Amino acid sequence: MNKKELFENIKRKKTFLCVGLDTDLKKIPPHLLKEADPVFAFNRAIIDATAAYCIAFKPNLAFYESEGLKGWHALEKTVGYIKTTYPDQFIIADAKRGDIGNTSYMYARTFYNIMNADALTIAPYMGEDSVTPFLSYEGKWVILLALTSNRGANDFQLTEGVPGERLFEKVLRISQKWGTDENMMYVVGATQGQLFEAVRRVVPDHFLLVPGVGAQGGSLTDVCRYGMNDVCGLIVNSSRAIIYADSSEQFATKAGEAASEVQKEMEQILSVNGII
Amino acid sequence: MNKKELFENIKRKKTFLCVGLDTDLKKIPPHLLKEADPVFAFNRAIIDATAAYCIAFKPNLAFYESEGLKGWHALEKTVGYIKTTYPDQFIIADAKRGDIGNTSYMYARTFYNIMNADALTIAPYMGEDSVTPFLSYEGKWVILLALTSNRGANDFQLTEGVPGERLFEKVLRISQKWGTDENMMYVVGATQGQLFEAVRRVVPDHFLLVPGVGAQGGSLTDVCRYGMNDVCGLIVNSSRAIIYADSSEQFATKAGEAASEVQKEMEQILSVNGII
Repeated sequence: MNKKELFENIKRKKTFLCVGLDTDLKKIPPHLLKEADPVFAFNRAIIDATAAYCIAFKPNLAFYESEGLKGWHALEKTVGYIKTTYPDQFIIADAKRGDIGNTSYMYARTFYNIMNADALTIAPYMGEDSVTPFLSYEGKWVILLALTSNRGANDFQLTEGVPGERLFEKVLRISQKWGTDENMMYVVGATQGQLFEAVRRVVPDHFLLVPGVGAQGGSLTDVCRYGMNDVCGLIVNSSRAIIYADSSEQFATKAGEAASEVQKEMEQILSVNGII
Repeated sequence: MNKKELFENIKRKKTFLCVGLDTDLKKIPPHLLKEADPVFAFNRAIIDATAAYCIAFKPNLAFYESEGLKGWHALEKTVGYIKTTYPDQFIIADAKRGDIGNTSYMYARTFYNIMNADALTIAPYMGEDSVTPFLSYEGKWVILLALTSNRGANDFQLTEGVPGERLFEKVLRISQKWGTDENMMYVVGATQGQLFEAVRRVVPDHFLLVPGVGAQGGSLTDVCRYGMNDVCGLIVNSSRAIIYADSSEQFATKAGEAASEVQKEMEQILSVNGII
């Protein structure tokens, strides 16, 4: 999916919500545990209930890997289900990979070819040759960590190198030599508030993947005030607040309602900003 | 395995070699492709041929994930085989993970509980709460990326924050608040030569995992000159130069010979430095 198609989806569906599939056997409704594949059964129900209100799904690899072989199988089925049933959805494998060149090539093959995800989150610490192997796939995206949503973001990402340039700003600046706003996005946490202005000074045109709204406490209003550009430029993720909205047999309906609430809020913001 | 046990193994076996299991279906001897599980067949033969000359094995997750379900299964069998056949070997899952707290907990469970690895490589970009979930497992280790072996290490790891402190030095300094030399090691690439002195000024006592000898061109002599401490303090990895030493039916014998050569060199260095 290219940038124009993504923007068209946002305008048509009046939403820039990404639903995070952090599917944990300990948290899904107990009645699903009798299913042959409880993780996939949960995901399919959540996907069906929320697809109308979002433009992307983001499975978090940790939750699948932690179930070993069964988890990988559930993940492959989940991505396959989205691809065939909702082909306009943008699929982000949230894996935060990144390694030396020959190893990154293997990860790219895994997530782009075998799993058929549209995008992959990547950690920037190892620099250019750990990222560029992911950029040679037509229609696929790298989503590079820049300024994350967690407390630990303060430990290194705000370290100032040359005066006035913090590490996350250096990551934004340097990485623009590797890719473009047509194959690269950045992770910027919703909890970072006004720092979105600093991000936008370096990358005015790129899409940003924004985790941290919902359970982590970030404000959608602040994110949009400081981060939205004229093609929206934001994919805002919510995981736990949507998929675990309810733990009864009505879990999917309730998840759909939670996603619908966010969509309505987003529609208003898009309208106020003249995007729709 | 604790630090003392690791040092005892190094003294007893007169080696600090780690054999990297970067097992690639495209590179293993063609005659193995007729096996039911060629990756595991290759690994088992390499492990049997090299175990006498090394104290650790390091499967690189990318190579297994790229084969999907089959790859994960081969990896689980490989770790199980090492654990039961060579229980004194230190097993490093080279995965370079790291995410927000609740996600890192899932990764810790995957690699320490399910896979039963002794250590896991972690990327530091997301800071404290992305690393500490891995530090609560008795007898398990975090190996944090500090100064990597690749060209891209120059992009961000050498960025100077406060004068005289580069990012990799800040990672070394700050992360010592999270763990100790009994549950944390650092990745420092063999290609970094004299920068090992800078590393040792901040972490004199920690073990370092050193990739980049062999195919990547790092010098074992330099690594030891600048990086060895009084308990050796080094686990030096070689992957391609050992496991792909030969592609005939004699591949395992030749891999054993390549590992034996490195062991002899290491024995001499340990002796010269008064460690054995």
